[in-house]
Amino acid sequence: MIDFDLYLERQRERINRALELCLPAEQIPASLFNAMRYSIMAGGKRLRPLLTLAAAEALGVDGVRVMDIACAVELIHTYSLIHDDLPAMDDSDLRRGKPTCHRVYGEAVAILAGDALLTLAFALLARYGLEKGCARAACLISAELAAAAGAAGMVGGQVLDLEAEGQLPDLAGLDRMHRLKTGALIRAAVRSGALAGGAAPRELEALSEYGSRLGLAFQIIDDLLDREGTAAELGKKTGVDQGRGKATYPALIGQTAARRRAEALHAEAVSFLDGLEIPAGSLRELARRLVYRNN
Amino acid sequence: MIDFDLYLERQRERINRALELCLPAEQIPASLFNAMRYSIMAGGKRLRPLLTLAAAEALGVDGVRVMDIACAVELIHTYSLIHDDLPAMDDSDLRRGKPTCHRVYGEAVAILAGDALLTLAFALLARYGLEKGCARAACLISAELAAAAGAAGMVGGQVLDLEAEGQLPDLAGLDRMHRLKTGALIRAAVRSGALAGGAAPRELEALSEYGSRLGLAFQIIDDLLDREGTAAELGKKTGVDQGRGKATYPALIGQTAARRRAEALHAEAVSFLDGLEIPAGSLRELARRLVYRNN
Repeated sequence: MIDFDLYLERQRERINRALELCLPAEQIPASLFNAMRYSIMAGGKRLRPLLTLAAAEALGVDGVRVMDIACAVELIHTYSLIHDDLPAMDDSDLRRGKPTCHRVYGEAVAILAGDALLTLAFALLARYGLEKGCARAACLISAELAAAAGAAGMVGGQVLDLEAEGQLPDLAGLDRMHRLKTGALIRAAVRSGALAGGAAPRELEALSEYGSRLGLAFQIIDDLLDREGTAAELGKKTGVDQGRGKATYPALIGQTAARRRAEALHAEAVSFLDGLEIPAGSLRELARRLVYRNN
Repeated sequence: MIDFDLYLERQRERINRALELCLPAEQIPASLFNAMRYSIMAGGKRLRPLLTLAAAEALGVDGVRVMDIACAVELIHTYSLIHDDLPAMDDSDLRRGKPTCHRVYGEAVAILAGDALLTLAFALLARYGLEKGCARAACLISAELAAAAGAAGMVGGQVLDLEAEGQLPDLAGLDRMHRLKTGALIRAAVRSGALAGGAAPRELEALSEYGSRLGLAFQIIDDLLDREGTAAELGKKTGVDQGRGKATYPALIGQTAARRRAEALHAEAVSFLDGLEIPAGSLRELARRLVYRNN
Protein backbone atom coordinates (compact mmCIF):
# COMPACT_ATOMS: atom_id res chain seq x y z
CA MET A 1 0.00 0.00 0.00
CA ILE A 2 2.60 2.56 -1.04
CA ASP A 3 -0.15 4.79 -2.36
CA PHE A 4 -1.84 4.82 1.01
CA ASP A 5 1.45 5.63 2.74
CA LEU A 6 1.70 8.67 0.50
CA TYR A 7 -1.92 9.58 1.14
CA LEU A 8 -1.36 9.37 4.91
CA GLU A 9 1.81 11.42 4.74
CA ARG A 10 0.10 14.14 2.73
CA GLN A 11 -2.96 14.18 4.97
CA ARG A 12 -0.81 14.40 8.12
CA GLU A 13 1.16 17.28 6.60
CA ARG A 14 -2.06 19.13 5.82
CA ILE A 15 -3.41 18.48 9.32
CA ASN A 16 -0.16 19.60 10.96
CA ARG A 17 -0.02 22.75 8.86
CA ALA A 18 -3.63 23.59 9.70
CA LEU A 19 -3.03 22.95 13.41
CA GLU A 20 -0.01 25.23 13.37
CA LEU A 21 -2.04 27.95 11.67
CA CYS A 22 -4.89 27.79 14.17
CA LEU A 23 -2.46 28.70 16.98
CA PRO A 24 -1.27 32.28 16.50
CA ALA A 25 2.51 32.48 16.11
CA GLU A 26 3.29 35.00 18.85
CA GLN A 27 1.03 35.94 21.68
CA ILE A 28 1.02 37.10 25.25
CA PRO A 29 1.26 35.23 27.59
CA ALA A 30 4.04 33.33 25.83
CA SER A 31 4.10 30.43 28.31
CA LEU A 32 0.47 29.59 27.53
CA PHE A 33 0.86 29.68 23.76
CA ASN A 34 4.13 27.77 23.94
CA ALA A 35 2.48 25.08 26.07
CA MET A 36 -0.44 24.80 23.65
CA ARG A 37 1.90 24.58 20.66
CA TYR A 38 4.20 22.14 22.45
CA SER A 39 1.41 19.65 23.08
CA ILE A 40 -0.31 20.07 19.74
CA MET A 41 2.88 19.75 17.70
CA ALA A 42 4.37 16.91 19.76
CA GLY A 43 3.78 14.56 16.86
CA GLY A 44 0.66 12.51 17.44
CA LYS A 45 -0.58 9.96 14.94
CA ARG A 46 -3.48 12.28 14.02
CA LEU A 47 -5.78 9.29 13.85
CA ARG A 48 -8.93 11.19 14.76
CA PRO A 49 -8.59 14.03 12.24
CA LEU A 50 -7.58 11.47 9.60
CA LEU A 51 -10.89 9.71 10.26
CA THR A 52 -12.81 12.99 10.00
CA LEU A 53 -11.20 13.83 6.67
CA ALA A 54 -11.63 10.29 5.33
CA ALA A 55 -15.33 10.22 6.26
CA ALA A 56 -15.97 13.58 4.58
CA GLU A 57 -13.96 12.56 1.50
CA ALA A 58 -15.83 9.27 1.22
CA LEU A 59 -18.97 11.37 0.88
CA GLY A 60 -17.41 13.50 -1.84
CA VAL A 61 -16.36 16.56 0.18
CA ASP A 62 -12.79 17.78 -0.13
CA GLY A 63 -10.73 17.49 3.03
CA VAL A 64 -9.61 21.12 2.79
CA ARG A 65 -13.18 22.23 3.31
CA VAL A 66 -13.58 20.36 6.60
CA MET A 67 -10.06 20.93 7.95
CA ASP A 68 -11.35 23.17 10.78
CA ILE A 69 -13.48 20.27 11.98
CA ALA A 70 -10.58 17.82 11.80
CA CYS A 71 -8.41 20.27 13.78
CA ALA A 72 -11.14 20.73 16.38
CA VAL A 73 -11.23 16.97 16.95
CA GLU A 74 -7.44 16.84 17.40
CA LEU A 75 -7.49 19.84 19.77
CA ILE A 76 -10.07 18.08 21.94
CA HIS A 77 -7.98 14.91 21.94
CA THR A 78 -4.80 16.80 22.85
CA TYR A 79 -6.46 18.77 25.67
CA SER A 80 -7.67 15.48 27.14
CA LEU A 81 -4.15 14.04 27.05
CA ILE A 82 -2.72 17.09 28.85
CA HIS A 83 -5.32 16.85 31.60
CA ASP A 84 -5.12 13.04 31.87
CA ASP A 85 -1.36 13.27 32.35
CA LEU A 86 -1.61 15.71 35.30
CA PRO A 87 -0.31 14.68 38.73
CA ALA A 88 -3.88 14.59 40.10
CA MET A 89 -4.85 12.12 37.36
CA ASP A 90 -2.49 9.59 35.74
CA ASP A 91 0.66 11.48 36.80
CA SER A 92 2.58 10.73 33.58
CA ASP A 93 6.01 12.11 32.76
CA LEU A 94 6.17 11.04 29.13
CA ARG A 95 3.76 11.49 26.23
CA ARG A 96 4.38 11.03 22.52
CA GLY A 97 8.05 10.49 23.38
CA LYS A 98 8.46 13.85 25.13
CA PRO A 99 8.05 15.17 28.66
CA THR A 100 4.38 15.85 29.37
CA CYS A 101 3.06 19.40 29.24
CA HIS A 102 3.02 19.93 33.01
CA ARG A 103 6.59 18.59 33.33
CA VAL A 104 7.75 21.36 30.99
CA TYR A 105 5.38 24.25 31.78
CA GLY A 106 4.17 23.46 35.28
CA GLU A 107 0.78 22.28 36.42
CA ALA A 108 -1.06 25.60 36.32
CA VAL A 109 -0.11 26.43 32.74
CA ALA A 110 -0.76 22.83 31.66
CA ILE A 111 -4.30 22.90 33.06
CA LEU A 112 -4.94 26.26 31.37
CA ALA A 113 -3.36 25.17 28.07
CA GLY A 114 -5.78 22.24 28.06
CA ASP A 115 -8.68 24.57 28.79
CA ALA A 116 -7.60 26.89 25.99
CA LEU A 117 -7.27 24.04 23.45
CA LEU A 118 -10.75 22.77 24.29
CA THR A 119 -12.13 26.30 23.90
CA LEU A 120 -10.26 26.78 20.61
CA ALA A 121 -11.84 23.61 19.25
CA PHE A 122 -15.29 25.16 19.50
CA ALA A 123 -14.00 28.44 18.06
CA LEU A 124 -12.88 26.47 14.97
CA LEU A 125 -16.27 24.79 14.63
CA ALA A 126 -18.00 28.18 14.80
CA ARG A 127 -15.58 29.55 12.20
CA TYR A 128 -16.32 26.59 9.95
CA GLY A 129 -20.02 27.36 10.17
CA LEU A 130 -19.59 31.06 9.46
CA GLU A 131 -16.90 30.94 6.77
CA LYS A 132 -18.21 27.96 4.85
CA GLY A 133 -21.81 29.11 5.08
CA CYS A 134 -23.03 25.95 6.75
CA ALA A 135 -23.97 27.10 10.21
CA ARG A 136 -26.52 24.35 10.75
CA ALA A 137 -23.99 21.61 10.01
CA ALA A 138 -21.55 23.38 12.33
CA CYS A 139 -24.13 23.31 15.13
CA LEU A 140 -24.81 19.61 14.52
CA ILE A 141 -21.07 18.86 14.63
CA SER A 142 -20.53 21.07 17.67
CA ALA A 143 -23.35 19.25 19.48
CA GLU A 144 -21.88 15.91 18.40
CA LEU A 145 -18.36 16.67 19.63
CA ALA A 146 -19.55 18.31 22.85
CA ALA A 147 -21.63 15.26 23.68
CA ALA A 148 -18.76 12.89 22.90
CA ALA A 149 -16.18 14.92 24.83
CA GLY A 150 -18.30 15.87 27.85
CA ALA A 151 -19.61 14.34 31.06
CA ALA A 152 -21.63 11.66 29.26
CA GLY A 153 -18.63 10.85 27.04
CA MET A 154 -14.86 11.22 27.30
CA VAL A 155 -14.74 13.14 30.59
CA GLY A 156 -17.16 10.69 32.21
CA GLY A 157 -15.03 7.81 30.98
CA GLN A 158 -11.93 9.35 32.54
CA VAL A 159 -13.72 9.58 35.90
CA LEU A 160 -14.82 5.94 35.63
CA ASP A 161 -11.22 5.01 34.82
CA LEU A 162 -9.84 6.90 37.83
CA GLU A 163 -12.44 5.45 40.15
CA ALA A 164 -11.83 1.91 38.90
CA GLU A 165 -8.16 1.83 39.87
CA GLY A 166 -7.36 -1.10 42.10
CA GLN A 167 -10.70 -2.77 41.36
CA LEU A 168 -11.28 -5.40 38.73
CA PRO A 169 -14.46 -4.68 36.76
CA ASP A 170 -16.01 -7.25 34.47
CA LEU A 171 -15.78 -7.09 30.70
CA ALA A 172 -19.04 -5.16 30.39
CA GLY A 173 -17.75 -2.54 32.84
CA LEU A 174 -14.46 -2.22 31.00
CA ASP A 175 -16.28 -1.87 27.68
CA ARG A 176 -18.55 0.83 29.10
CA MET A 177 -15.61 2.80 30.46
CA HIS A 178 -13.65 2.67 27.22
CA ARG A 179 -16.65 3.37 25.02
CA LEU A 180 -16.85 6.67 26.89
CA LYS A 181 -13.19 7.43 27.46
CA THR A 182 -11.77 6.63 24.01
CA GLY A 183 -14.58 5.33 21.85
CA ALA A 184 -16.94 8.30 21.99
CA LEU A 185 -14.47 10.77 20.47
CA ILE A 186 -13.29 8.34 17.77
CA ARG A 187 -16.90 7.67 16.82
CA ALA A 188 -17.63 11.41 16.87
CA ALA A 189 -14.57 12.09 14.69
CA VAL A 190 -16.06 9.82 12.03
CA ARG A 191 -19.59 11.20 12.49
CA SER A 192 -18.37 14.80 12.28
CA GLY A 193 -16.80 14.14 8.91
CA ALA A 194 -19.95 12.35 7.82
CA LEU A 195 -22.19 15.22 8.96
CA ALA A 196 -19.97 17.71 7.13
CA GLY A 197 -20.23 15.48 4.08
CA GLY A 198 -24.01 15.61 4.21
CA ALA A 199 -24.40 11.91 4.96
CA ALA A 200 -27.82 10.38 4.43
CA PRO A 201 -29.33 8.83 7.60
CA ARG A 202 -28.41 5.32 6.45
CA GLU A 203 -24.82 6.38 5.75
CA LEU A 204 -24.51 8.19 9.06
CA GLU A 205 -25.80 5.14 10.89
CA ALA A 206 -23.34 2.77 9.19
CA LEU A 207 -20.40 5.12 9.73
CA SER A 208 -21.37 5.45 13.41
CA GLU A 209 -21.26 1.68 13.81
CA TYR A 210 -17.90 1.60 12.03
CA GLY A 211 -16.60 4.33 14.37
CA SER A 212 -17.79 2.80 17.59
CA ARG A 213 -16.28 -0.61 16.82
CA LEU A 214 -13.07 1.01 15.68
CA GLY A 215 -12.90 2.99 18.93
CA LEU A 216 -13.12 -0.11 21.08
CA ALA A 217 -10.67 -2.06 18.91
CA PHE A 218 -8.25 0.87 19.20
CA GLN A 219 -8.37 0.71 23.00
CA ILE A 220 -7.84 -3.04 23.13
CA ILE A 221 -4.76 -2.67 20.92
CA ASP A 222 -3.57 0.16 23.18
CA ASP A 223 -3.82 -2.15 26.18
CA LEU A 224 -1.91 -4.88 24.33
CA LEU A 225 0.82 -2.45 23.30
CA ASP A 226 1.12 -1.15 26.85
CA ARG A 227 1.86 -4.73 27.89
CA GLU A 228 3.99 -5.87 24.96
CA GLY A 229 5.52 -2.76 23.46
CA THR A 230 8.59 -0.79 24.46
CA ALA A 231 8.69 2.85 25.54
CA ALA A 232 10.79 3.64 22.46
CA GLU A 233 8.07 2.34 20.16
CA LEU A 234 5.19 3.98 22.00
CA GLY A 235 6.70 7.27 23.13
CA LYS A 236 5.26 6.75 26.60
CA LYS A 237 6.00 4.56 29.57
CA THR A 238 4.83 0.97 29.14
CA GLY A 239 3.62 -1.52 31.69
CA VAL A 240 1.86 1.38 33.40
CA ASP A 241 -1.53 -0.31 33.51
CA GLN A 242 -0.19 -3.38 35.29
CA GLY A 243 1.90 -1.37 37.74
CA ARG A 244 -1.14 0.66 38.69
CA GLY A 245 -3.52 -2.23 38.99
CA LYS A 246 -5.64 -0.90 36.14
CA ALA A 247 -8.08 -3.25 34.53
CA THR A 248 -7.09 -3.98 30.94
CA TYR A 249 -8.37 -6.33 28.26
CA PRO A 250 -5.31 -8.61 28.35
CA ALA A 251 -5.50 -8.72 32.17
CA LEU A 252 -9.18 -9.55 32.08
CA ILE A 253 -9.46 -12.02 29.20
CA GLY A 254 -5.83 -12.81 28.27
CA GLN A 255 -3.64 -11.52 25.46
CA THR A 256 -4.78 -13.98 22.82
CA ALA A 257 -8.47 -13.43 23.43
CA ALA A 258 -7.94 -9.67 23.57
CA ARG A 259 -6.20 -9.65 20.19
CA ARG A 260 -8.88 -11.87 18.72
CA ARG A 261 -11.57 -9.52 20.00
CA ALA A 262 -9.83 -6.49 18.45
CA GLU A 263 -9.65 -8.32 15.13
CA ALA A 264 -13.31 -9.29 15.33
CA LEU A 265 -14.28 -5.68 16.06
CA HIS A 266 -12.19 -4.59 13.10
CA ALA A 267 -13.97 -7.05 10.84
CA GLU A 268 -17.35 -5.84 12.08
CA ALA A 269 -16.33 -2.21 11.62
CA VAL A 270 -15.41 -2.62 7.96
CA SER A 271 -18.46 -4.79 7.29
CA PHE A 272 -20.59 -1.69 7.93
CA LEU A 273 -18.77 0.02 5.06
CA ASP A 274 -19.61 -2.83 2.66
CA GLY A 275 -23.27 -1.92 2.41
CA LEU A 276 -22.58 1.69 1.39
CA GLU A 277 -22.24 2.93 -2.16
CA ILE A 278 -19.38 5.28 -1.32
CA PRO A 279 -15.61 4.99 -1.97
CA ALA A 280 -14.63 3.95 1.56
CA GLY A 281 -11.11 2.69 0.76
CA SER A 282 -9.40 5.16 3.10
CA LEU A 283 -11.71 4.38 6.00
CA ARG A 284 -11.10 0.68 5.39
CA GLU A 285 -7.33 1.03 5.28
CA LEU A 286 -7.23 3.35 8.31
CA ALA A 287 -9.10 0.72 10.29
CA ARG A 288 -6.72 -2.02 9.20
CA ARG A 289 -3.62 -0.04 10.17
CA LEU A 290 -5.11 0.99 13.46
CA VAL A 291 -5.67 -2.60 14.51
CA TYR A 292 -2.45 -4.01 13.06
CA ARG A 293 -0.12 -1.31 14.39
CA ASN A 294 2.82 -1.51 16.75
CA ASN A 295 2.73 1.98 18.21
CA MET B 1 -36.26 50.02 43.15
CA ILE B 2 -38.55 47.36 44.56
CA ASP B 3 -39.66 46.51 41.03
CA PHE B 4 -36.11 45.80 40.00
CA ASP B 5 -35.57 43.62 43.08
CA LEU B 6 -38.53 41.55 41.94
CA TYR B 7 -37.23 41.46 38.38
CA LEU B 8 -33.83 40.27 39.60
CA GLU B 9 -35.35 37.63 41.83
CA ARG B 10 -37.50 36.29 39.00
CA GLN B 11 -34.65 36.30 36.52
CA ARG B 12 -32.33 34.50 38.96
CA GLU B 13 -35.01 31.87 39.59
CA ARG B 14 -35.40 31.30 35.86
CA ILE B 15 -31.64 31.06 35.40
CA ASN B 16 -31.26 28.66 38.30
CA ARG B 17 -34.07 26.46 37.06
CA ALA B 18 -32.57 26.38 33.57
CA LEU B 19 -29.12 25.57 34.95
CA GLU B 20 -30.55 22.71 36.97
CA LEU B 21 -32.32 21.35 33.91
CA CYS B 22 -29.22 21.41 31.74
CA LEU B 23 -27.49 19.02 34.16
CA PRO B 24 -29.19 15.61 33.98
CA ALA B 25 -30.57 14.56 37.37
CA GLU B 26 -28.89 11.17 37.71
CA GLN B 27 -25.92 9.97 35.76
CA ILE B 28 -22.91 7.73 35.94
CA PRO B 29 -20.30 8.59 37.17
CA ALA B 30 -22.17 10.14 40.09
CA SER B 31 -19.12 11.94 41.52
CA LEU B 32 -18.67 13.91 38.30
CA PHE B 33 -22.30 14.99 38.00
CA ASN B 34 -22.47 15.78 41.71
CA ALA B 35 -19.35 17.95 41.44
CA MET B 36 -20.76 19.78 38.41
CA ARG B 37 -24.09 20.36 40.16
CA TYR B 38 -22.39 21.36 43.42
CA SER B 39 -20.41 24.13 41.75
CA ILE B 40 -23.18 25.32 39.46
CA MET B 41 -25.82 25.45 42.19
CA ALA B 42 -23.52 26.94 44.85
CA GLY B 43 -25.45 30.20 44.60
CA GLY B 44 -23.56 32.69 42.48
CA LYS B 45 -24.90 36.16 41.78
CA ARG B 46 -25.61 35.13 38.17
CA LEU B 47 -24.37 38.52 37.01
CA ARG B 48 -23.20 37.33 33.60
CA PRO B 49 -26.38 35.49 32.55
CA LEU B 50 -28.41 38.43 33.90
CA LEU B 51 -26.48 40.68 31.53
CA THR B 52 -27.08 38.30 28.61
CA LEU B 53 -30.81 38.22 29.26
CA ALA B 54 -31.01 41.98 29.82
CA ALA B 55 -29.17 42.72 26.57
CA ALA B 56 -31.44 40.43 24.56
CA GLU B 57 -34.55 41.82 26.26
CA ALA B 58 -33.45 45.40 25.57
CA LEU B 59 -33.51 44.43 21.89
CA GLY B 60 -37.01 43.00 22.18
CA VAL B 61 -36.22 39.29 22.48
CA ASP B 62 -37.77 37.34 25.33
CA GLY B 63 -35.29 35.99 27.87
CA VAL B 64 -36.78 32.50 27.65
CA ARG B 65 -35.67 32.27 24.06
CA VAL B 66 -32.01 32.95 24.88
CA MET B 67 -31.81 31.06 28.17
CA ASP B 68 -29.45 28.44 26.70
CA ILE B 69 -27.01 31.23 25.89
CA ALA B 70 -27.28 32.73 29.38
CA CYS B 71 -26.66 29.30 30.90
CA ALA B 72 -23.66 28.73 28.64
CA VAL B 73 -22.11 31.95 29.91
CA GLU B 74 -22.64 30.93 33.54
CA LEU B 75 -21.24 27.43 32.88
CA ILE B 76 -18.08 28.98 31.43
CA HIS B 77 -17.78 31.29 34.43
CA THR B 78 -18.26 28.44 36.90
CA TYR B 79 -15.74 26.16 35.17
CA SER B 80 -13.18 28.97 35.38
CA LEU B 81 -13.79 29.36 39.12
CA ILE B 82 -13.32 25.63 39.72
CA HIS B 83 -10.01 25.61 37.84
CA ASP B 84 -8.79 28.92 39.33
CA ASP B 85 -9.39 27.56 42.84
CA LEU B 86 -7.23 24.44 42.27
CA PRO B 87 -4.11 23.89 44.41
CA ALA B 88 -1.88 24.45 41.35
CA MET B 89 -3.53 27.87 40.82
CA ASP B 90 -4.98 30.06 43.58
CA ASP B 91 -5.31 27.17 46.04
CA SER B 92 -8.59 28.41 47.53
CA ASP B 93 -10.62 26.53 50.12
CA LEU B 94 -13.74 28.67 50.03
CA ARG B 95 -15.94 29.86 47.16
CA ARG B 96 -19.42 31.35 47.26
CA GLY B 97 -19.43 30.58 50.99
CA LYS B 98 -18.81 26.86 50.57
CA PRO B 99 -15.78 24.59 50.33
CA THR B 100 -14.33 24.71 46.82
CA CYS B 101 -15.07 21.89 44.39
CA HIS B 102 -11.69 20.16 44.79
CA ARG B 103 -11.98 20.32 48.60
CA VAL B 104 -15.18 18.29 48.37
CA TYR B 105 -14.60 16.04 45.34
CA GLY B 106 -10.82 15.91 45.04
CA GLU B 107 -8.56 17.49 42.50
CA ALA B 108 -9.06 15.01 39.66
CA VAL B 109 -12.86 15.19 39.68
CA ALA B 110 -12.74 18.98 40.09
CA ILE B 111 -10.53 19.40 37.02
CA LEU B 112 -12.82 17.08 35.05
CA ALA B 113 -16.01 18.75 36.32
CA GLY B 114 -14.62 22.05 35.05
CA ASP B 115 -13.80 20.48 31.69
CA ALA B 116 -17.30 19.02 31.46
CA LEU B 117 -18.98 22.34 32.30
CA LEU B 118 -16.97 24.14 29.63
CA THR B 119 -17.90 21.45 27.12
CA LEU B 120 -21.56 21.59 28.14
CA ALA B 121 -21.58 25.35 27.51
CA PHE B 122 -20.86 24.78 23.82
CA ALA B 123 -23.40 21.95 23.70
CA LEU B 124 -26.04 24.45 24.87
CA LEU B 125 -25.02 26.98 22.23
CA ALA B 126 -25.31 24.32 19.53
CA ARG B 127 -28.71 23.30 20.89
CA TYR B 128 -29.83 26.93 20.81
CA GLY B 129 -28.86 27.15 17.15
CA LEU B 130 -30.61 23.91 16.21
CA GLU B 131 -33.78 24.20 18.29
CA LYS B 132 -34.42 27.88 17.74
CA GLY B 133 -33.57 27.70 14.05
CA CYS B 134 -30.89 30.36 14.27
CA ALA B 135 -27.72 28.41 13.57
CA ARG B 136 -25.84 31.39 12.20
CA ALA B 137 -26.46 33.46 15.35
CA ALA B 138 -25.40 30.43 17.42
CA CYS B 139 -22.11 30.24 15.51
CA LEU B 140 -21.53 33.98 16.02
CA ILE B 141 -22.19 33.63 19.74
CA SER B 142 -20.10 30.47 20.02
CA ALA B 143 -17.19 32.25 18.31
CA GLU B 144 -17.70 35.25 20.60
CA LEU B 145 -17.68 33.23 23.81
CA ALA B 146 -14.82 30.98 22.71
CA ALA B 147 -12.69 34.03 21.92
CA ALA B 148 -13.55 35.68 25.25
CA ALA B 149 -12.96 32.51 27.28
CA GLY B 150 -9.85 31.22 25.49
CA ALA B 151 -6.13 31.87 25.32
CA ALA B 152 -6.57 35.42 24.05
CA GLY B 153 -9.19 36.11 26.74
CA MET B 154 -10.02 34.69 30.15
CA VAL B 155 -7.51 31.82 30.18
CA GLY B 156 -4.72 34.14 28.99
CA GLY B 157 -5.66 36.59 31.73
CA GLN B 158 -5.43 33.87 34.36
CA VAL B 159 -1.90 32.99 33.17
CA LEU B 160 -0.90 36.68 33.31
CA ASP B 161 -2.33 36.84 36.82
CA LEU B 162 -0.41 33.76 37.99
CA GLU B 163 2.81 34.99 36.44
CA ALA B 164 2.42 38.47 37.97
CA GLU B 165 2.37 37.23 41.57
CA GLY B 166 5.03 38.92 43.64
CA GLN B 167 5.64 41.57 41.00
CA LEU B 168 4.05 44.99 40.87
CA PRO B 169 2.86 45.81 37.35
CA ASP B 170 1.84 49.33 36.36
CA LEU B 171 -1.76 50.38 35.91
CA ALA B 172 -1.72 49.59 32.19
CA GLY B 173 -0.46 46.08 32.93
CA LEU B 174 -3.11 45.54 35.58
CA ASP B 175 -5.82 46.79 33.22
CA ARG B 176 -4.63 44.47 30.46
CA MET B 177 -4.65 41.46 32.76
CA HIS B 178 -8.14 42.15 34.10
CA ARG B 179 -9.58 43.02 30.69
CA LEU B 180 -8.67 39.47 29.73
CA LYS B 181 -9.29 37.63 32.99
CA THR B 182 -12.65 39.13 34.00
CA GLY B 183 -13.57 41.77 31.45
CA ALA B 184 -13.63 39.65 28.31
CA LEU B 185 -16.34 37.27 29.53
CA ILE B 186 -18.51 40.05 30.98
CA ARG B 187 -18.28 41.94 27.69
CA ALA B 188 -19.03 38.71 25.79
CA ALA B 189 -22.03 38.01 28.04
CA VAL B 190 -23.52 41.36 26.97
CA ARG B 191 -22.55 40.90 23.32
CA SER B 192 -23.99 37.37 23.21
CA GLY B 193 -27.35 38.67 24.33
CA ALA B 194 -27.08 41.49 21.81
CA LEU B 195 -26.20 39.10 18.97
CA ALA B 196 -29.13 36.88 19.90
CA GLY B 197 -31.30 39.97 19.89
CA GLY B 198 -30.23 40.81 16.36
CA ALA B 199 -28.46 44.02 17.35
CA ALA B 200 -27.66 46.49 14.58
CA PRO B 201 -23.91 47.22 14.23
CA ARG B 202 -24.28 50.54 16.05
CA GLU B 203 -26.14 48.87 18.93
CA LEU B 204 -23.63 46.04 19.18
CA GLU B 205 -20.80 48.54 19.28
CA ALA B 206 -22.38 50.59 22.07
CA LEU B 207 -23.26 47.51 24.11
CA SER B 208 -19.70 46.24 23.71
CA GLU B 209 -18.34 49.51 25.14
CA TYR B 210 -20.85 49.28 27.97
CA GLY B 211 -19.75 45.70 28.66
CA SER B 212 -16.02 46.30 28.60
CA ARG B 213 -16.25 49.27 31.01
CA LEU B 214 -18.55 47.32 33.27
CA GLY B 215 -16.11 44.42 33.30
CA LEU B 216 -13.22 46.54 34.48
CA ALA B 217 -15.36 48.39 37.05
CA PHE B 218 -16.50 45.01 38.37
CA GLN B 219 -12.91 43.92 38.94
CA ILE B 220 -11.93 47.13 40.72
CA ILE B 221 -14.88 46.71 43.08
CA ASP B 222 -13.83 43.09 43.61
CA ASP B 223 -10.38 44.27 44.64
CA LEU B 224 -11.87 46.83 47.02
CA LEU B 225 -14.19 44.25 48.57
CA ASP B 226 -11.31 41.81 49.00
CA ARG B 227 -9.60 44.51 51.04
CA GLU B 228 -12.56 45.94 52.93
CA GLY B 229 -15.17 43.20 53.05
CA THR B 230 -15.57 40.27 55.39
CA ALA B 231 -15.57 36.58 54.46
CA ALA B 232 -19.18 36.35 55.65
CA GLU B 233 -20.25 39.03 53.18
CA LEU B 234 -18.23 37.68 50.27
CA GLY B 235 -18.43 33.94 50.77
CA LYS B 236 -14.71 33.61 50.18
CA LYS B 237 -11.56 34.41 52.09
CA THR B 238 -10.70 38.11 52.12
CA GLY B 239 -7.35 39.85 52.25
CA VAL B 240 -6.10 37.13 49.91
CA ASP B 241 -4.66 39.51 47.35
CA GLN B 242 -2.53 41.34 49.90
CA GLY B 243 -1.34 38.15 51.59
CA ARG B 244 -0.22 36.81 48.25
CA GLY B 245 1.45 39.98 47.07
CA LYS B 246 -0.99 40.28 44.18
CA ALA B 247 -1.23 43.58 42.44
CA THR B 248 -4.65 45.17 42.99
CA TYR B 249 -6.15 48.53 42.15
CA PRO B 250 -6.25 49.77 45.76
CA ALA B 251 -2.64 48.64 46.25
CA LEU B 252 -1.54 50.40 43.10
CA ILE B 253 -3.48 53.67 43.17
CA GLY B 254 -5.06 53.74 46.65
CA GLN B 255 -8.59 52.91 47.78
CA THR B 256 -10.09 56.34 47.12
CA ALA B 257 -8.71 56.61 43.60
CA ALA B 258 -9.73 53.01 42.87
CA ARG B 259 -13.31 53.68 43.93
CA ARG B 260 -13.39 56.89 41.93
CA ARG B 261 -12.14 55.02 38.87
CA ALA B 262 -14.83 52.34 39.21
CA GLU B 263 -17.48 55.05 39.44
CA ALA B 264 -16.08 56.84 36.38
CA LEU B 265 -16.12 53.58 34.41
CA HIS B 266 -19.71 53.02 35.51
CA ALA B 267 -20.68 56.49 34.29
CA GLU B 268 -18.97 55.86 30.96
CA ALA B 269 -20.63 52.46 30.64
CA VAL B 270 -24.16 53.80 31.03
CA SER B 271 -23.40 56.79 28.79
CA PHE B 272 -23.09 54.34 25.90
CA LEU B 273 -26.66 53.26 26.54
CA ASP B 274 -27.91 56.86 26.29
CA GLY B 275 -27.42 57.08 22.56
CA LEU B 276 -29.52 53.99 21.83
CA GLU B 277 -33.24 53.92 21.14
CA ILE B 278 -33.82 50.78 23.17
CA PRO B 279 -35.34 50.27 26.64
CA ALA B 280 -32.04 49.79 28.50
CA GLY B 281 -33.35 50.26 32.04
CA SER B 282 -32.30 46.79 33.21
CA LEU B 283 -28.79 47.14 31.81
CA ARG B 284 -28.55 50.52 33.52
CA GLU B 285 -29.71 49.25 36.89
CA LEU B 286 -27.55 46.11 36.71
CA ALA B 287 -24.52 48.34 36.15
CA ARG B 288 -25.42 50.54 39.10
CA ARG B 289 -25.86 47.61 41.47
CA LEU B 290 -22.68 45.97 40.29
CA VAL B 291 -20.62 49.03 41.15
CA TYR B 292 -22.43 49.94 44.36
CA ARG B 293 -22.52 46.43 45.85
CA ASN B 294 -21.03 45.04 49.03
CA ASN B 295 -20.57 41.40 48.01
